[in-house]
Amino acid sequence: MTHSFGKPLTRNEDPRLLRGEALFVDDVELPGLLHVAFLRSPHAHARLLSVDLGAARARPGVIAAYAAEDLGDYWKPGPLLVPPPPVPGMVFHQCCQVPLVKDKARHVGEPVAMVVAESRYIAEDALGDIAVEWEVLDAVGDLEAALQPGAALVHEHLGVNVAAKVHQHRGDYAAAAKAAALVVRRRFTYDRGASIPMETRGVVAQWDPRADRLTVWDTTQAPVVIRNGLAAMLGLSERQVRVVAPNIGGGFGPKMMMFYPEEVLVPWAAMRLGRPVKWIEDRLEHFFATTHERSQIHDAEIALDASGRILGVKDVFLHDNGAYDPYGLTLPLNSQCTLLGCYVVPAYDSVFTAVFTNRTLVTPYRGAGRQHGVFVMERLLDIAARQLGIDRNEIRRRNFIPPDAFPYDQGVIYQDFSRLSYDSGNYAPILAKALDAIGYDRFIAETQPRARAEGRALGIGVVCYVEGTGIGPYEGAKVQVQGSGKVSLATGIGSQGQGHATAFAQVVAEQLGVDIRDIEVTTGDTDQFYWGVGTFASRGAVVAGSAAHEAAKVVRQKILKTAARHFECAEEDLVIADGKVHVVGVPDHSITLGALAGLANPMRGAVTPGTEPGLEATSYFGPAGGATASGAHAMIVEVDPLTLRPTILDYVVVHDCGTVINPLILAGQIQGGVAQGIGNAFFEQLHWDEQGQLMNASLADYLLPTALDVPRIRMDHTVTPSPLNPLGVKGAGEAGAIPVGALFAQALEDALDLPSKEIEILEMPLSPSRLWEISNGG
Amino acid sequence: MTHSFGKPLTRNEDPRLLRGEALFVDDVELPGLLHVAFLRSPHAHARLLSVDLGAARARPGVIAAYAAEDLGDYWKPGPLLVPPPPVPGMVFHQCCQVPLVKDKARHVGEPVAMVVAESRYIAEDALGDIAVEWEVLDAVGDLEAALQPGAALVHEHLGVNVAAKVHQHRGDYAAAAKAAALVVRRRFTYDRGASIPMETRGVVAQWDPRADRLTVWDTTQAPVVIRNGLAAMLGLSERQVRVVAPNIGGGFGPKMMMFYPEEVLVPWAAMRLGRPVKWIEDRLEHFFATTHERSQIHDAEIALDASGRILGVKDVFLHDNGAYDPYGLTLPLNSQCTLLGCYVVPAYDSVFTAVFTNRTLVTPYRGAGRQHGVFVMERLLDIAARQLGIDRNEIRRRNFIPPDAFPYDQGVIYQDFSRLSYDSGNYAPILAKALDAIGYDRFIAETQPRARAEGRALGIGVVCYVEGTGIGPYEGAKVQVQGSGKVSLATGIGSQGQGHATAFAQVVAEQLGVDIRDIEVTTGDTDQFYWGVGTFASRGAVVAGSAAHEAAKVVRQKILKTAARHFECAEEDLVIADGKVHVVGVPDHSITLGALAGLANPMRGAVTPGTEPGLEATSYFGPAGGATASGAHAMIVEVDPLTLRPTILDYVVVHDCGTVINPLILAGQIQGGVAQGIGNAFFEQLHWDEQGQLMNASLADYLLPTALDVPRIRMDHTVTPSPLNPLGVKGAGEAGAIPVGALFAQALEDALDLPSKEIEILEMPLSPSRLWEISNGG
Repeated sequence: MTHSFGKPLTRNEDPRLLRGEALFVDDVELPGLLHVAFLRSPHAHARLLSVDLGAARARPGVIAAYAAEDLGDYWKPGPLLVPPPPVPGMVFHQCCQVPLVKDKARHVGEPVAMVVAESRYIAEDALGDIAVEWEVLDAVGDLEAALQPGAALVHEHLGVNVAAKVHQHRGDYAAAAKAAALVVRRRFTYDRGASIPMETRGVVAQWDPRADRLTVWDTTQAPVVIRNGLAAMLGLSERQVRVVAPNIGGGFGPKMMMFYPEEVLVPWAAMRLGRPVKWIEDRLEHFFATTHERSQIHDAEIALDASGRILGVKDVFLHDNGAYDPYGLTLPLNSQCTLLGCYVVPAYDSVFTAVFTNRTLVTPYRGAGRQHGVFVMERLLDIAARQLGIDRNEIRRRNFIPPDAFPYDQGVIYQDFSRLSYDSGNYAPILAKALDAIGYDRFIAETQPRARAEGRALGIGVVCYVEGTGIGPYEGAKVQVQGSGKVSLATGIGSQGQGHATAFAQVVAEQLGVDIRDIEVTTGDTDQFYWGVGTFASRGAVVAGSAAHEAAKVVRQKILKTAARHFECAEEDLVIADGKVHVVGVPDHSITLGALAGLANPMRGAVTPGTEPGLEATSYFGPAGGATASGAHAMIVEVDPLTLRPTILDYVVVHDCGTVINPLILAGQIQGGVAQGIGNAFFEQLHWDEQGQLMNASLADYLLPTALDVPRIRMDHTVTPSPLNPLGVKGAGEAGAIPVGALFAQALEDALDLPSKEIEILEMPLSPSRLWEISNGG
Repeated sequence: MTHSFGKPLTRNEDPRLLRGEALFVDDVELPGLLHVAFLRSPHAHARLLSVDLGAARARPGVIAAYAAEDLGDYWKPGPLLVPPPPVPGMVFHQCCQVPLVKDKARHVGEPVAMVVAESRYIAEDALGDIAVEWEVLDAVGDLEAALQPGAALVHEHLGVNVAAKVHQHRGDYAAAAKAAALVVRRRFTYDRGASIPMETRGVVAQWDPRADRLTVWDTTQAPVVIRNGLAAMLGLSERQVRVVAPNIGGGFGPKMMMFYPEEVLVPWAAMRLGRPVKWIEDRLEHFFATTHERSQIHDAEIALDASGRILGVKDVFLHDNGAYDPYGLTLPLNSQCTLLGCYVVPAYDSVFTAVFTNRTLVTPYRGAGRQHGVFVMERLLDIAARQLGIDRNEIRRRNFIPPDAFPYDQGVIYQDFSRLSYDSGNYAPILAKALDAIGYDRFIAETQPRARAEGRALGIGVVCYVEGTGIGPYEGAKVQVQGSGKVSLATGIGSQGQGHATAFAQVVAEQLGVDIRDIEVTTGDTDQFYWGVGTFASRGAVVAGSAAHEAAKVVRQKILKTAARHFECAEEDLVIADGKVHVVGVPDHSITLGALAGLANPMRGAVTPGTEPGLEATSYFGPAGGATASGAHAMIVEVDPLTLRPTILDYVVVHDCGTVINPLILAGQIQGGVAQGIGNAFFEQLHWDEQGQLMNASLADYLLPTALDVPRIRMDHTVTPSPLNPLGVKGAGEAGAIPVGALFAQALEDALDLPSKEIEILEMPLSPSRLWEISNGG
């Protein structure tokens, strides 16, 4: 057997990506390709009175122009929606957009009209020909104001701007607060950011009238879901639709909205016009039309005994949902659940209100609501530790769920609609390693005092978190030995940079004894693998990886069975290594896997009942519950006293995602996550004016961290395998991003010695100017 | 349940075909498409001295020109070849062509060079630029001369022109002949014909460098085999190759050669040039480059007792194999096996020699060698009956295998490499029905004597035959309930007009209670169904139909299980009808299959171990042996005494192919088969000169029967279900064509009263002029 599992192998996908030979959606060129531009609402909230497409349609090179009335009534999103979670007493109003504004626009950038032309240039020019009459309405933006009587209504028929209200609780918080030695109560805010992937969204669609089939190339994270949804909306059978999610330049969550208007309009136009149609989102569109995340306001309190043990937590929060909520309540549910963190919280009372606003929709973005929960809990612990005079690390240690308490039932309903239960974990060693690696004691004892004496503002932060990963319902994988001796793996989920072509190959290689360079992985093509859900919630390795493992095990058995028949020996006498099956103890007796594949599909003879041709297997894996990863981030930061610009001097991540398939890919995931976390903590914030206009919708104004701002991350790992899947793996995709806000707040407070001034950092994101305001009591 | 199984429903595929909306290979247009023309050998046998492509390559618009030396050594046909049958003592020399002539050309039309150009016009013009030097050799054509010492050798390294020699026997024929009251000994010849489908062959290939995948549209009957073969030859994994066999305008056998040079050269060029490439065979090419059938010489004898009971048959025959034999020995094996017909033959001694000649290759064409066997046996019985003074029908009746003798082991190895065993049958009722339908007694007693008295030459013929059908190794099918409520079926075999989209839908509808118009059948696309063998040997309905049946049964169970869970009732309380599941006795409790499909693939919850998403199943079926269909054809013919042109006055087919799925499709198969049989019996013959030049390679010279020549066929059926498959079906694709030669011989002899002149018809095909010669003792 070729032992590649667990090794830091370079990625199979990289040579092609580095040579520019990988397919991205915009690479798709087809004969007769048409191009689309969208006229988008300039208003955050406005009634649409009329759209005149006459002049646009008359422009040379324009093939068609459509407004809502041209679409008919084909928008049937029913089966695609994420349903409400099974929480007793909850309120949930699901309001979905129509692809083109029909009655009124509810956020700036909502598509109003679609022009299809011979080139994008012509299509863009034709947008200027379209005359639209609007009646501008007051825009809803502020979450608290939105809930006041008399506020403008995003969806009039509801009578309120409440999208959902969900109350979850366990234990008796009131009693806990009464019994507490200390109750800390604060308001925390976390403002909007955007995911800003390298590649914006894009869709190309082609209708083949002779095959009655639609092919759609889409930058989606969930090609199977898009396939199913397109079929439902366009009146097709699922098998008539092929969705290809090729290489994608970053997903991060917003690329699995269900549905973006453009995702159905472009295929619809391709079918209607009988010509292929392309739309690639430009960067300006991306700021308005691709979903955002983050805006929440938490009124939270924690009750503790004198020793710092948590007695209970109460949290009431508002969640900014944006204008529509097709995606359901994943985000606020994640915030609600993840707040519990690594800690024993005997009483928990949490209620959130999701609010409709005249803003771009909010759906999961790397971390997916977990940031908020971690930020609130870690900040509460920091403040409580100070007030109780306990070391901030010690208060965490005292409240950790003990390692013998797993599986640990948190008693609340999670985003996967089952009760949140942590599968396994051991948090104290993680914190200890992080403190050790960052040199906590020495920093506190020597480095910081010395720096302060020199007038330098150095601070340290250490925070802990859990990440719910690897949720169901399922993924599948097909493993197949090729006549060439190579092994193929196909799965329904696509890749947006997660290294599936390598990690899954390692999983398969473990069973089949082939070099991972000889394992060809196909992802994100619904014709190559029909079923699946998507790449999100750090679930690829856990769910699809386990399916690949199961399929490879079946193929392994078929290989041994076929070889035993060929050599007329017992399966126990065979060993698979280096792409061959060898008879133990008979040096010249071996056969390549490719030759065996040929024997398994003979041209004569019969495939007898219960057997199948070829050396292949398709397996599905659905975990009984999510796998809970955990970790600690530690950082030493220096703040320029004049500019308040922080410089990260050291950054340590200690992480437990169970069994590690490929440490190199894991390191990349964490490094990237921390980079985005730093952006979210200190650089990236969407600013809106009173009218709901986005003020910084460009990369000149919306600041992203550059390579100069992101330090080299030092990493260490602990391993508590998940008992919920055969590989023992847990997801790692979001771990880098989740605790960075909490970490920045703690470290910057420390660097600027804010606690001594009774100043606390209770908001995210920060910036030099905002930090200046805060540290000056603003 | 919607009862459509067994009903004469019109075909699902016809609306699209009739409206011209169906995809054929030549409909494939791609950006940058290049076109190919082949320079072909003008000589039947000639050594290739040199090829100069310089001028061709220099012609404007020519992209590339290739001869053998440009190809390198990639031709690795190993796994594709049909291996030799397991007959003890047999000789088999497998000699395969290389795609472009390397050392010498072995038949006229063998491709020598390939020009790829911007248009077919340019490519054809460039063929004239190519300078080739040949050393012309003596051509081998006559089968007996080919085996004489000193004959030119098609393959020098063999030292002989013997491709194979296979001797099969059972019982003691010498003893039988000794004990016989009568031994009839004759020489029979059956000359070459061609299949002449409406659509010639064609290949379009496209290489996608970003996906590393090759897509090939090919007029093949065996897309999966072509996929596997292309992968092996081009150094790819099978999963990298997609072969689409779209609608095909007639297959008839020659469209499943493995491999035609063009089938690998066009994809090879597409990969090499990075542009899509198309080649469509023109009609002239078709005559030389697409395989032929038929040429055999039999020296056969039959030994009978005085009552007309067969004691034994001996047959020594030569089979014209053409220049190469990649396809193996299917044809002569079929002749050898099928000669035994419906009869008890206690002693059988048969030896054939397959001969290499400088002719186009010979591979199966509708009937696939069975015609020859039926012709020899039925003619021997006709002659024996006359000599014994027994009615020609009575001698058949006396020798029929009795209905209680099945399964009936014939003791010889069949084309599927297993022992030939008839699964079921009952021949006497078939003959009785045919005689009754044609009005045999009245014709003999009244019609014929009256006609003769009027100077009219009316004759009657009645012949019997069996058809081995439905051989393995296997086919598979995937049945899937779509969210739309429609049901899809995909299978690996393609359709060349057999009505798969209807017959398979009827099989599925029987289980799933949906209208067959709501069943969408996809065939012949290796991306839609990966495994399979091909459409040949009248096996589609038997093997793929049974796989569809098995898959539909599994889906039926999944439907009931999902519905029982939904309704919280027992599966026994449910009934499937009209696309819905109904709870028996609860009128309003029903759910559409589409809604159930949605429930089977939830967005939340887990797919638990052992279950799979969706309402779908993939099943494979491999029959334990072939299913033996049978029948009788009867015909009344009038021959113009002056021109000897026959006019068919009545034509009856009584046929037993087991359970009938769709009588309308069956009728079409038989009607078409008879039409081709008539062509093969009286119109179609390939004429060659001494140098191996084909003299009538055009539709002006090679005569096909027209609608005026083919009568309306009257049909009747008996049903002895096959015990070898769950549907009880047997194949019917070739039944129409197989006995027509024997029937023509008998009826024309009768019409012209040749026996009274001691003249016998011992050859096929006939023609007015040849019939004149024969009836004048020539």
